[in-house]
Amino acid sequence: MFLARVIGKVISTQKCEKLVGGKLLVIKSLDENKNIIENSALVALDSVGAGIGDIVLVDWGSTIYEDKKIAADMAIVGIVDDIQLSDN
Amino acid sequence: MFLARVIGKVISTQKCEKLVGGKLLVIKSLDENKNIIENSALVALDSVGAGIGDIVLVDWGSTIYEDKKIAADMAIVGIVDDIQLSDN
Amino acid sequence: MFLARVIGKVISTQKCEKLVGGKLLVIKSLDENKNIIENSALVALDSVGAGIGDIVLVDWGSTIYEDKKIAADMAIVGIVDDIQLSDN
Amino acid sequence: MFLARVIGKVISTQKCEKLVGGKLLVIKSLDENKNIIENSALVALDSVGAGIGDIVLVDWGSTIYEDKKIAADMAIVGIVDDIQLSDN
Amino acid sequence: MFLARVIGKVISTQKCEKLVGGKLLVIKSLDENKNIIENSALVALDSVGAGIGDIVLVDWGSTIYEDKKIAADMAIVGIVDDIQLSDN
Repeated sequence: MFLARVIGKVISTQKCEKLVGGKLLVIKSLDENKNIIENSALVALDSVGAGIGDIVLVDWGSTIYEDKKIAADMAIVGIVDDIQLSDN
Repeated sequence: MFLARVIGKVISTQKCEKLVGGKLLVIKSLDENKNIIENSALVALDSVGAGIGDIVLVDWGSTIYEDKKIAADMAIVGIVDDIQLSDN
Repeated sequence: MFLARVIGKVISTQKCEKLVGGKLLVIKSLDENKNIIENSALVALDSVGAGIGDIVLVDWGSTIYEDKKIAADMAIVGIVDDIQLSDN
Repeated sequence: MFLARVIGKVISTQKCEKLVGGKLLVIKSLDENKNIIENSALVALDSVGAGIGDIVLVDWGSTIYEDKKIAADMAIVGIVDDIQLSDN
Repeated sequence: MFLARVIGKVISTQKCEKLVGGKLLVIKSLDENKNIIENSALVALDSVGAGIGDIVLVDWGSTIYEDKKIAADMAIVGIVDDIQLSDN
């Protein structure tokens, strides 16, 4: 899993059956200080009600999630309330 | 998943049985502003009728897709109509 | 698997059912001399009782772990006592 | 999947039972213009009769290939005849 | 799969049940000329009797290996006798 910020959403009408009804959010991965690390725009299926601006926990593999709501290789599996580093 | 642009297609007559009949598209990954990020040429199986020039949504893993049409580790699972960023 | 240091923890109340009850630790990957290699902040589910400051062994895939405690794509699967390099 | 050129082969007598009888080819990933992108030497199991010098299509995951010949995490699944880019 | 050199071993007493009894080797990935490419220290479970200094073949995924000895996401699946490049 990794930390990311939700920066947008993807609109796609022509898509794979498994993705229909899912919310597709554009995310950028973060370091532990919540700084965006520039790279390609990743897209994750939301499973926890995340919205734009949220800091989220993203999971790559979804093979062990049995609920059919997560039908993709990248899913938002948690909304981050706080990151407590060792210095704090 | 990630965003990519379809830039070409791969012609392969001698291939794995599972890929026969599939459309193999060459893709380049994009950032959220639709800029190509240079790297190796990825190849994805099309499952949604994508064509050259399209901005698409690409899925790495296909283990949870039960339909036999997606028989590869990288599949185009959606055609992107729009990317709505938080500023908009 | 790779070597990492635990540098913090993630607090998330709104999360995927499978993660409830799990300890989510922020980790940074290390080289063999225990130097942190800067990159995005990864988050791993703890399965061995690791704590902040520990050097740990992290596993990406969890598909072959049958115990339900590891319900994520990244899990701490060992606490490292020592790394013995060939020179020693 | 990605594009690669076969540059050599690996000789290994002491190996995992599943790899016995397989042809282990050293590959370098390519961009869409068939330029080698320098990085670590990847090794793929051949499933299509590829040889040194061939441009090939390589698949990372093999979980959905039911034929037992592909018993590795990286397999050559096609020999590339041509790459047709959008300009052509 | 990729080529790597074994440079050390990991001592871990507190570890996941599946790893108990396994030999955990520290590896560095190599290019085709056997040069180490610097990056994070990877750790692979040995399944072929590899030792420090050996050049080995490493597999990322282990889902298709049915033998219970390989209970990790990275396993040494072969000892490399020789790498024959196209020039030779």
